[in-house]
Amino acid sequence: MEVDFGDDGLVPAVAQDADSGAVLMLAYVSPAALEATLETSTAHYYSRSREELWEKGATSGHTQSVEEVRVDCDADALLYLVDQTGGACHTGHRSCFYRTIEGDNVGERVFDPNAVYDSEDGNEIGNEDTSEDD
Amino acid sequence: MEVDFGDDGLVPAVAQDADSGAVLMLAYVSPAALEATLETSTAHYYSRSREELWEKGATSGHTQSVEEVRVDCDADALLYLVDQTGGACHTGHRSCFYRTIEGDNVGERVFDPNAVYDSEDGNEIGNEDTSEDD
Repeated sequence: MEVDFGDDGLVPAVAQDADSGAVLMLAYVSPAALEATLETSTAHYYSRSREELWEKGATSGHTQSVEEVRVDCDADALLYLVDQTGGACHTGHRSCFYRTIEGDNVGERVFDPNAVYDSEDGNEIGNEDTSEDD
Repeated sequence: MEVDFGDDGLVPAVAQDADSGAVLMLAYVSPAALEATLETSTAHYYSRSREELWEKGATSGHTQSVEEVRVDCDADALLYLVDQTGGACHTGHRSCFYRTIEGDNVGERVFDPNAVYDSEDGNEIGNEDTSEDD
């Protein structure tokens, strides 16, 4: 399938837990990230904050094994069906969508981010860019 | 929760079937669309092709009743948990993600788009903008 990467060369990708069906995260994918994902069956994205190819879990070990990649009707969005190791979210939650719009925390925390991310290498918790830390 | 609508005033929103967990579609949401969604509990988006507020299902009847809206860790993506009437996709499929990246059709077709959309009012099937027809 031809993917429409649009003007900015990126498409949004939804990562969904292949077993539970939980929506884990939304990130962006470049042509190189899609190619790496398909070649390795490990989820790759493009980090807009770091402006580089981003292998999910390269730092944290919380990789995503990709079972299938789907394309939407007009080919400008992707769905990654994944087996998630640990948690998808840099906050320690299984899913990045752990809060309701009202602010209630409805998500499961599965790891301690302070034990996983080294704040000295720039992956500081609380920085708004850290959602794209893996 | 404060949502970060970014430079273009839009955030991507994933619609997920509240019962089955199926990811139905990805579309974009403006502040007005989010407000309308929360007020009416019916999914609203922003149509980038028509440049207007878009009540999902206004034409087709395939509305989405919204059970919950979730926000991701850095508040720049939304998850709508919905009860989908009919199909989410203008092609007649239940989900817009009905194809694999290899081009295999793995989705369920639940309605005939020719019977739902009137091609004379601009909602022509095959037009790349029709993903944002409801």
